[in-house]
Amino acid sequence: MIQVEERKQLFLGLHDLKPILEPQSVAVIGASRQIGSVGHAVLSNLLMGQFTGVVYPVNPKARSICGVRTYQSVLEIPDFVDLAVIIVRANLVPQVLEECGQKGVKGAIVISAGFKETGPEGAKLESKVKEIAQHYDIALVGPNCLGVINTDPNYRLNASFAKEMPLPGNIAFVSQSGALCTAVLDYAKGQGIGFSKVISLGNKADVNENDFIAYLWQDHHTQVILLYIEELSNGRKFLQLAREITGEGDNRKPILALKAGRTPAGARAVASHTGSLAGSDEVYEALFAQAGVLRADTVEDLFEYAVAFANQPLPNGKRTVIITNAGGPGIMATDACVRYGLDLAQLDEKTLEQLRSKLPPHASLQNPIDLIGDAQSDRYEAALDAVLDDPNVDAILVLLTPQAMTDIENIAYTIVKKSKRKVKPILACFMGLVDISSGVKVLEENGVPCYSFPEDAIRALAAMARYVDWVRRPRTGYKVFPVDTERARKLLSEAPISEHGFIPEEIALRVLEVYGLPMLPWGVAKNADEAVLVAREIGYPVVLKVLSPDVVHKFDLGGVQLNLKNDDDVRQAFEKIMNSVKQHIPNARIEGVLVQAMAKKGREVILGLKRDPQFGPILMFGLGGIYVEVLRDVTFRFAPVRELGAYRMVRDIRTYKLLEGVRGEPPADIDKIVECIERLSQLAIEQDLIEELDINPLIAYPQGEGAVVVDVRIMVNR
Amino acid sequence: MIQVEERKQLFLGLHDLKPILEPQSVAVIGASRQIGSVGHAVLSNLLMGQFTGVVYPVNPKARSICGVRTYQSVLEIPDFVDLAVIIVRANLVPQVLEECGQKGVKGAIVISAGFKETGPEGAKLESKVKEIAQHYDIALVGPNCLGVINTDPNYRLNASFAKEMPLPGNIAFVSQSGALCTAVLDYAKGQGIGFSKVISLGNKADVNENDFIAYLWQDHHTQVILLYIEELSNGRKFLQLAREITGEGDNRKPILALKAGRTPAGARAVASHTGSLAGSDEVYEALFAQAGVLRADTVEDLFEYAVAFANQPLPNGKRTVIITNAGGPGIMATDACVRYGLDLAQLDEKTLEQLRSKLPPHASLQNPIDLIGDAQSDRYEAALDAVLDDPNVDAILVLLTPQAMTDIENIAYTIVKKSKRKVKPILACFMGLVDISSGVKVLEENGVPCYSFPEDAIRALAAMARYVDWVRRPRTGYKVFPVDTERARKLLSEAPISEHGFIPEEIALRVLEVYGLPMLPWGVAKNADEAVLVAREIGYPVVLKVLSPDVVHKFDLGGVQLNLKNDDDVRQAFEKIMNSVKQHIPNARIEGVLVQAMAKKGREVILGLKRDPQFGPILMFGLGGIYVEVLRDVTFRFAPVRELGAYRMVRDIRTYKLLEGVRGEPPADIDKIVECIERLSQLAIEQDLIEELDINPLIAYPQGEGAVVVDVRIMVNR
Repeated sequence: MIQVEERKQLFLGLHDLKPILEPQSVAVIGASRQIGSVGHAVLSNLLMGQFTGVVYPVNPKARSICGVRTYQSVLEIPDFVDLAVIIVRANLVPQVLEECGQKGVKGAIVISAGFKETGPEGAKLESKVKEIAQHYDIALVGPNCLGVINTDPNYRLNASFAKEMPLPGNIAFVSQSGALCTAVLDYAKGQGIGFSKVISLGNKADVNENDFIAYLWQDHHTQVILLYIEELSNGRKFLQLAREITGEGDNRKPILALKAGRTPAGARAVASHTGSLAGSDEVYEALFAQAGVLRADTVEDLFEYAVAFANQPLPNGKRTVIITNAGGPGIMATDACVRYGLDLAQLDEKTLEQLRSKLPPHASLQNPIDLIGDAQSDRYEAALDAVLDDPNVDAILVLLTPQAMTDIENIAYTIVKKSKRKVKPILACFMGLVDISSGVKVLEENGVPCYSFPEDAIRALAAMARYVDWVRRPRTGYKVFPVDTERARKLLSEAPISEHGFIPEEIALRVLEVYGLPMLPWGVAKNADEAVLVAREIGYPVVLKVLSPDVVHKFDLGGVQLNLKNDDDVRQAFEKIMNSVKQHIPNARIEGVLVQAMAKKGREVILGLKRDPQFGPILMFGLGGIYVEVLRDVTFRFAPVRELGAYRMVRDIRTYKLLEGVRGEPPADIDKIVECIERLSQLAIEQDLIEELDINPLIAYPQGEGAVVVDVRIMVNR
Repeated sequence: MIQVEERKQLFLGLHDLKPILEPQSVAVIGASRQIGSVGHAVLSNLLMGQFTGVVYPVNPKARSICGVRTYQSVLEIPDFVDLAVIIVRANLVPQVLEECGQKGVKGAIVISAGFKETGPEGAKLESKVKEIAQHYDIALVGPNCLGVINTDPNYRLNASFAKEMPLPGNIAFVSQSGALCTAVLDYAKGQGIGFSKVISLGNKADVNENDFIAYLWQDHHTQVILLYIEELSNGRKFLQLAREITGEGDNRKPILALKAGRTPAGARAVASHTGSLAGSDEVYEALFAQAGVLRADTVEDLFEYAVAFANQPLPNGKRTVIITNAGGPGIMATDACVRYGLDLAQLDEKTLEQLRSKLPPHASLQNPIDLIGDAQSDRYEAALDAVLDDPNVDAILVLLTPQAMTDIENIAYTIVKKSKRKVKPILACFMGLVDISSGVKVLEENGVPCYSFPEDAIRALAAMARYVDWVRRPRTGYKVFPVDTERARKLLSEAPISEHGFIPEEIALRVLEVYGLPMLPWGVAKNADEAVLVAREIGYPVVLKVLSPDVVHKFDLGGVQLNLKNDDDVRQAFEKIMNSVKQHIPNARIEGVLVQAMAKKGREVILGLKRDPQFGPILMFGLGGIYVEVLRDVTFRFAPVRELGAYRMVRDIRTYKLLEGVRGEPPADIDKIVECIERLSQLAIEQDLIEELDINPLIAYPQGEGAVVVDVRIMVNR
C-alpha cells in the first residue's frame, strides 16, 4: 500500500471532475428547438432524465426550448453554472468557451465534432480550445463525444445525446468511441445491465481516462470500471493509477479493458480514426499486466466479465464445480475450464455423501455433477447446498438445458436463494433463448449472471480468478543497487555516436559494468601485439571483435573471430578481421579490436530496453536466437520493474521450460537473470540518454553459476 | 471426384434411413395418457406437428390417447409400420423390438434410457437390443435419445419429445447430446433459425453419424450439416464420407463440427458420460483437417457459422471490406480480420471514386469505409453498390451502431435489397439489442445473418473462406512407390520382439530400406575387429550403437558412441559401449553393435506412426529435439496421406519458418521430407504389424541435398 504522500502524488495533475459529473446547474450551449438535432436531444435528455439541478438552455434565437426559458449566452444566466454542455459548430467553440471561462464555469463537455479527427485544421482548432480551457482552469471533456451520464439519484445527469438514461448499477463504462456507447447502452438495456456512469471521452483534448478512473476509484456507486480504449493519453500515469485502483486497499476495484487496434492493420485504422497513433500491442499488453488490468478481447467478453464482478463475490481460487442437468453441456464447460485455466474441483468426501443421499442413483456425483435430465429444483438445491459448504470448491457454475419437464423458473429461484449466501461466486448458464427466458429474467433481476453458453460463464469465472491472483500476489519492491550513476551518465554523454546512433561497444560494456551486470574479462587493443598482451592477461581462449563506428553487422562482415586459443590465433585473427572489414567497407574507420574472454556454453537469453516516446522505458526478455526470431517468444514490462515483475517476465515466455531444464539439463540460473533484469531496469530509469539497449546474448549458466553479458549495443539520444 | 464404383463402396454398410426419416406410418410404443410423460409427448408431438402419415399408439392399458385409438402391441396394428418409436422401460425394449422385427418394421428410435450410460448391466442390455436390430435388419437410432425431426413438408415428422417443431430451414443438426438438441431448438426459435432435420443420436448402438451424414448429403433440403460429437463411432468411415461430402462435386456441403471432450479433463467427462473413451484431441484435429470438416469451438460459433453458410453465397477469397457508421466498431472488425486470417480488401480506384462522389467529405473511404454517425440508408446503399462491383472485394461486413437519428429499419431493408444480388456474401452486425431489434428482424427474415458483435461476423466470414480454400485445394493423389512389400512383411513377422515390443534396430533399418527411405550406410558387427572392418567399408567418421533387446534408452546407458574417426576410435568405442552397458544392465544380452556413418549436421525432424485402435494408422511430423519436447509442435494426418496432405503436415507446424531457413540458413529439403512422409504412409498402410514407429531424427539437408534416417524404433504387434 502506498503512503499518504505518494497517494497525493498520484492525484497530482488530475482534473477535478465534480463539475462534470456532479453539477448543480448545467448550461446547454447550442440547445435547439429542432427535434432530432443533437442540440435538442441533449437538453431533452437532461430534462427527461430528471436532472436534480437546474438546466439553462443557451440559444440566441429562441425564447424557450422544451418549455424552458433560454438565454442569449452563458454570460446572461442569472445563476452560477457548474457545467457547460457545448453543441455549437466547431469554429464557434473557442468563443463560447471563452464566455464560459468568464462566467466561472469549471466543467465543459464539448459534444461538437470537427476537430482533430478531421485533419490539421481541426487539430489547430482543438489546440486553441485546449488552451482556453487551461487558461480558465476548466475541465473539458471531448470534443467530438457523446457526453456523460451519471445515474446517481442525487444527480440523475444525462448530459449526452444517447437516447435514454440507463438503469442504475455499479458498472462504470468509459469509452473512447461514442458510437460504442450508444451500442452498449442498447445492449445493456436488453440485458438488464445497469451503470453508475457512462462516459464518452471523445478526442481527449483535456480530460482523459486517467481523470475518470481516479474519480471512479473514489465513487462508491462504482464497483467495476470498464474501458474501451484506442490509445491511452498518458500510459505512465495510467499504470500508476490503475495499479493502485486494482490492487491496493479495501477500496480496490477491477478494471476491465478492451483495447482496439490490437494488430498492425488494426492500429492503422486507429490512426486514421482519431488522428493519433496507437502504441504497439506488446506495449499495451505489458502495461495491462503490470497494472492489474484485465484485458477483454471483445465487447461481449467485457460485459460478460463485468456482470460477474458486479454481482458476485470473488472466488477464493480456481477450483470450479459444474452442476448440470445434461452431460453434453457439462463436457463443454469442463473443456472450457481446462482451456481457460480453471481447475475442476475435487469434491470433498462429505459432499459426495451428501449428494449420494439426495440425488437419484444414476446421477453422476463426480464433477461435473450431473443431476440427470428430469432434475427439478430440489436436486439443484441439494447440489448447491453441498458444494457451497465444500472447502474444496471456490466457484460454481449451474447449467440448465430446457428438457421436457424442467421447471425453469423454480430452479432459477432456487439458485437465487442459494446465491444470497454470497460466500462463493455462482454463475448460471441456461441454454436456449425462448423457453428459458423467464428463468433468465429471475436470475438477472436477482444478481445471478446468466450466460447463453457454458464457455462464456467459464471465461468470466476465469477472469475473476485472474483478478484474485493479482490482488493476492506477493508484494515485492524495486531493488536499488549501489551504482555510480554519475560515472555512467558521463560515459553516455561523452561517448562518440555513430551515424546509426550507437556508442562504441567498449563504452557500452563499461556502462553495464557500472550497473553491475556480470561481464566477461575484456580489454581493447589497437594492433595485433596489443591484442596478444590483452589476451594473455585475460587468459585463453578469447574472442576478437572489430571496433569501428562504421560497422554495424560486424559478424556478417568477418569482424568477429571466436575461440582463439593462443598468441598465434590472436595475431591471425587480427589480420583476418582487418582484411575482411576493409574489403567490405574500404573507408571504415577502425579503432582496433575488443578482446574478450570466450564465454563457456550455456543458455542464451536476450535482454533489451527501449524508450517508448509515449510510455517511457520498456524492458524485454526472451530466449536468444531462433526463439526470438521465429517464435517471437518475448515478454515486456515497463521499468522500473519490481522483483516479482522481473520473475514474471522470465516465467511468462512460452519456452520457459527450456530454462527449467529439459532432457536432463540442469535448470538455468534464473535468479541471476532476474537480477540482471532488475539492474537493467535501474539503468533504464536513471540513464535517460539511452534510447535502445540490447544484450544479445546474455549467457546463463546452471543454477548458482551466474550469467555473463556477451554482446551489447546501446543507442543513445542526446 | 471418385468413381461410381468407389462411391458405391462409400455407402457400403450404411443403413437405409428412409424408414426413420421418411416413414408413412409410425408406431409409438409406450405412448402414454399421462400429460408431461415422454410417452405422451412423443405421440402428441407427432400429431401436433401434423405428420403426413399415420400414427399408431401402442399401449396395452389404454383404449385411446390424444383421441387416437391404441393397440395392444405393434403386432396388432392392421397396417404396415415403417418406424417404431419406443419409449418403454429399458428391460422391455428387447421384447418390443422382437415384435417390431416380426411385424417387418424397418426403422426404430429407442428413446428409453437405462442402457450403456448406466453401467455394465445396461451395456449388456444394449448389446442384446443391437443384436435383435441386426437380426431383423432394423435401422435403430438410440437408445437414450431425444428422437428425430424432419421438417420436410412431405413428412412433417416430429418423432421426438422436444417441445415443438422447429421452423423449416436448410440446416441439419446431428447431436450426440439430446439435451443439447432441446437447448439448440430453443435458441434457434429465438434467433429465427430453421432446420431441415434435427437428429439426436443417443448411445449410437446401431445407427451413427455416418449413416446420417450420408443421408443428409443426398437430402436436397439440407445445405449445411452441423455435428455435435463426443466420439465418432467409425472415424475411418467418417473421414472417407466427410471428405467427399465437403469437397467433391456440385452437391458438396459444408460440415461444421463441435467436438467436446477436447482436453484431457474434458475427455474424462466424456468417458463417464457415454461409457466409451474418446480418441485424443490431436487425432480428431487431424481427422477434421483431412476431411474438410470445419471445427467450431462452441455451440455459439457453430450456429453463427451455420447461418452464414445457409444464407449467403461463398466468398471468392479472403479480401474483406467493412462498411460502418462508427470508427470504434470498425477497428474491432479490422482487428478481428487480422486475428482470424482475413485480408482487408484494397479498394479499386473506381470504387474510391464512386464513394468519393456519393459520401460526405469527412467519410473515410479507406477500408473500413466509415459512413460517419449520421449515415442513413442512402450512404449504405452507395457503399454497398460500390463494393459489390469491386473486383478486389470478396466479402462484405456491414456494421451499424444505433446513433441518434439512424433509421435502422430502412438501412436493414437496403442491405437486404443489395444482398439479393447474391454475388458476394454480405453479413451484418447491428450492435445493441433493443433499438436495433426491428432492423435485425428484417435482416434475419430475409437471409442476411446479423451478429451482435463485429468479431462474430468476421469469424463466420473466416470460416467461409477456409471452406472455400478446402474446396479449391489442388487435388493430389496417393503416391505408390514400387516396394517389395512381402520382404518387409517377412522381416516384420520374423523379427524377434523385445519385452517392450520393439524389433532389433538393424531389422527396423532394413524395413525402412525396403520402403526407400534415405539411409546412411550401415552394418552390423559382433566384435571390435568386425566393427573396424565395417567402419572402413562405410568410411569414417562413424557411429557405434549397441544392439541389445534389453537396452531401450541406449543413449543414456552409454550405448552410443559418436564421431569415431579411425580404427582406434572404433576399438575404444566398442570397449566403452560393452563396459558401460554391462555396468548398467549386468545381464543384458548384447548382440553386437550397429556401425553407421556419422550423419552430417542438418535440420533434425521427426517422423512417427501410431496405429490408433479406433482410427487406424496416424502419421506424425515435427521438428526434432526441444521443439517436440517443449513446444509440442507436431502435426498429425491419417495414412494414407496424399501429396498435398504430406506438404501440409510439414507446413502447418508453428516453427515452419525454421525449415524455410532463418538467419541466412538455406531452406531445408522439404520435398524430400514430404517424400519420406509419403513413403512412411505407404508403409503404415501395407504393414499392419507395425504398432508404432519413430524416426528420430531424420536429418534434412539444404534443398536438393536430401535427408537421412539416423535412428528408428519399430514396435510390432503380432
